[in-house]
Amino acid sequence: MTRYQHLASLLGQRIEQGLYPIGVRLPSIRVLSKEHGVSITTVQQAYRELEDQQLVEARAKSGYFVAQRKLRPGLPACCDMTQCSLTIPRWDLVREMVNPARAGEIALGTAAPDVAASSLKPLTRAISHLSQRHSARTFVDDDIRGCAELRGQIARLMIDSGSRMDADNILITDGGREALSIAIRCVCKPGDVVAVEKPCFPAGLQLLHGLGMNILEIPTDPVAGISVEALELALEQWPVKAVLVTSTGQNPLGYAMPAERREALLRLAQEHDVAIIEDDAYGELSYPYPRPATITSMDLSGNVLLCSSFSKTLAPGLRVGWIAPGSYMNRAIHMKYSGTGPTAGLPQLAIADFIEQGHYLKHVRRMRAQYQYNRDLITGWVTDYFPCGTRVSRPQGGFLLWIELDHRVDAQRLNRALSEQAISIAVGAVFSAAGKYDSCLRINYARPLTGEIKAAVSHIGAMVHKLLEQ
Amino acid sequence: MTRYQHLASLLGQRIEQGLYPIGVRLPSIRVLSKEHGVSITTVQQAYRELEDQQLVEARAKSGYFVAQRKLRPGLPACCDMTQCSLTIPRWDLVREMVNPARAGEIALGTAAPDVAASSLKPLTRAISHLSQRHSARTFVDDDIRGCAELRGQIARLMIDSGSRMDADNILITDGGREALSIAIRCVCKPGDVVAVEKPCFPAGLQLLHGLGMNILEIPTDPVAGISVEALELALEQWPVKAVLVTSTGQNPLGYAMPAERREALLRLAQEHDVAIIEDDAYGELSYPYPRPATITSMDLSGNVLLCSSFSKTLAPGLRVGWIAPGSYMNRAIHMKYSGTGPTAGLPQLAIADFIEQGHYLKHVRRMRAQYQYNRDLITGWVTDYFPCGTRVSRPQGGFLLWIELDHRVDAQRLNRALSEQAISIAVGAVFSAAGKYDSCLRINYARPLTGEIKAAVSHIGAMVHKLLEQ
Repeated sequence: MTRYQHLASLLGQRIEQGLYPIGVRLPSIRVLSKEHGVSITTVQQAYRELEDQQLVEARAKSGYFVAQRKLRPGLPACCDMTQCSLTIPRWDLVREMVNPARAGEIALGTAAPDVAASSLKPLTRAISHLSQRHSARTFVDDDIRGCAELRGQIARLMIDSGSRMDADNILITDGGREALSIAIRCVCKPGDVVAVEKPCFPAGLQLLHGLGMNILEIPTDPVAGISVEALELALEQWPVKAVLVTSTGQNPLGYAMPAERREALLRLAQEHDVAIIEDDAYGELSYPYPRPATITSMDLSGNVLLCSSFSKTLAPGLRVGWIAPGSYMNRAIHMKYSGTGPTAGLPQLAIADFIEQGHYLKHVRRMRAQYQYNRDLITGWVTDYFPCGTRVSRPQGGFLLWIELDHRVDAQRLNRALSEQAISIAVGAVFSAAGKYDSCLRINYARPLTGEIKAAVSHIGAMVHKLLEQ
Repeated sequence: MTRYQHLASLLGQRIEQGLYPIGVRLPSIRVLSKEHGVSITTVQQAYRELEDQQLVEARAKSGYFVAQRKLRPGLPACCDMTQCSLTIPRWDLVREMVNPARAGEIALGTAAPDVAASSLKPLTRAISHLSQRHSARTFVDDDIRGCAELRGQIARLMIDSGSRMDADNILITDGGREALSIAIRCVCKPGDVVAVEKPCFPAGLQLLHGLGMNILEIPTDPVAGISVEALELALEQWPVKAVLVTSTGQNPLGYAMPAERREALLRLAQEHDVAIIEDDAYGELSYPYPRPATITSMDLSGNVLLCSSFSKTLAPGLRVGWIAPGSYMNRAIHMKYSGTGPTAGLPQLAIADFIEQGHYLKHVRRMRAQYQYNRDLITGWVTDYFPCGTRVSRPQGGFLLWIELDHRVDAQRLNRALSEQAISIAVGAVFSAAGKYDSCLRINYARPLTGEIKAAVSHIGAMVHKLLEQ
């Protein structure tokens, strides 16, 4: 951290803590320069940084003031409940959520990336070219493990995540969901206990339920991720077979686990001989660059199974995911063969080409920047339009924002009210089998944030105000 | 049956039974005319029919003789064993079988259709056009049930199978295998007993095993299909939850169940409250036209689940299958959501277009003719090149031939020997969890039967001779 960043962070903290109230004039550049023993330029840079963060505003000839806009909302609370559940986790609500969007609907409840980006065009071209060739490989799925070209390219990409793997360590799947399903069936039998983050993405919970697993929800910090301490207690009480975690860009909280937490989690799992299933679907959409190393990359035991896909980085409709199942490759291939058979060849070959030609890294770099920019913008809007006391996540990757409303607001009721305005959100209740998130929601900020989306967020805020007043 | 057909059938039976040995001169036209009280023309027509069947040959000025070629091989034996099995049904062998073909290999062991047919070209064109449009629908999987256009077209096609269904009764899946997996999980829990035909296709057995089911193999007649009588006995002994059957073009035997057997099976299942899972992947490749009505079409209870795909009619690499899950739609959607998520949009839209434009029915008609022609050709080759006593199936649909060798021949040993000549077959052992088919094999006759394939069949026959002599 440079000097000006350090100073900006210090002042920012004081503002967030309320030591400098809104509208108050901040110390002059000269005063701060003396007080902190830094140059005038350093203080100027620090103030510019705080202006960028919209915490401070400069007024001509008067100096710097704490911005009139509201303070950043607090973080969502960390849920402290640990529970074993066998009930079907709100399939009725999930079913509603996955209904196709109506024409003209502003669908903020999905977990789809921006698929309209022009940097995806070479991919559509590749699909078109390949299909024209009428190659047998696009029509017959030859290798149950997936196309060797794509597996090779994935192995190359994974170097950035700290992993050394080759094409033979990878199995292509029908999207990330099949990768997770295979991972779970590699290490568990029906009736086994699987620990998950709380909150956990709905497809994860439904998948575990569909496979007949018992779900154990572990308290999860909105910044640091799954509580290793709580997990340790849980492992002593329950015969846990696997832990399903997202170390980077978790859905819905968006956090990236600090490196030492990843290491601690791995140590704990190894001590208890518990498999880790690491969902890395959002890993390459990490805002910090280079991206954090996966837990898989720290493992030598083969008991960590890495699952990922191109659904979040490219497009979900391609249905191409993959798993690096560690020491479980033979079982994984069996699950793949007996579950869906080989994955379609055409999209695999197109993606392999897209990566090889350098389009992939360019696209992902661009989307990371767009998503990070959008995060700040939409967080600002929530700050502006939602009631005081609203809490929001601080995503470090991906394109999903988690919002915790006042506990008196029922998100399902909110969603029904919004439906009349053709706006939809993801209600918190589907992110836990054990309940608890009735006043939470998740919104998607992947697409360029137009005035229409701003109006939708404003409308949601107004509706929350209204529900609170009733 | 006309008079000449009756006479031809009578003579054919006598030849097959060996009453008229090979090379022997058959009764003259005049003698037969008197003996059977029919006209000269009728006898001439009967002999012409027998000539077409290659049972008889005419020699100028000498009359008719029993053809020098060998008699049609007998039918495979119907296995009478009923057994409950929990062992993993030869995954090692299946794994070998699904390895990608080596360059230049004549892969007769696959169950892939002919994907090089020119009548598929409009499909590749549709894929290419759709991908150029860069439509969001090809990139985001909107409806978990699949594209409405395709579901509508499938419902229209299914009229020929006797079914009245509409788009809302259909769920698109990632190939037919996922359709079966969903069907089984709709009606069974892990540990339940599922009855199957014996022999049963390897993916079916592996799938049941992968889902933790107990497999009950029911004796199956190579012409009439699963023994309803044996199934009835089995239902009295075992708590069977579902019966998995292929009523038309069964893999590997190729039979089509007679209508009255379908009805009897349905009645039995209903009496015992057992679900029927009807695999119709080969249904539209039935040689008899119009195709037989499905069991599903006879059902009113909603307890018959119809599974199918475009893998056998178009191409397996498309990975588009579907299920009409009867009364289990909500569960089926849950399984789909939690298993793989929505199926890729692009191939669905392309197939819907292909059907709508009339290309589909034309293609299927053409392939049916090709496959039926190939069946007769390859059956002739097996007759010519394989040892006496070899038994073969009489496929009524699809493109797979089941061959039963002398019990002293080990098909795995045969396959290993063939591997040196870059020929591969499907070994019988993978078609049963309980064993029994060690001397059987399945070969694919989908592609145009070139001299190369003829040489391969001849080579297999020679190798069988050789193994018998050892």
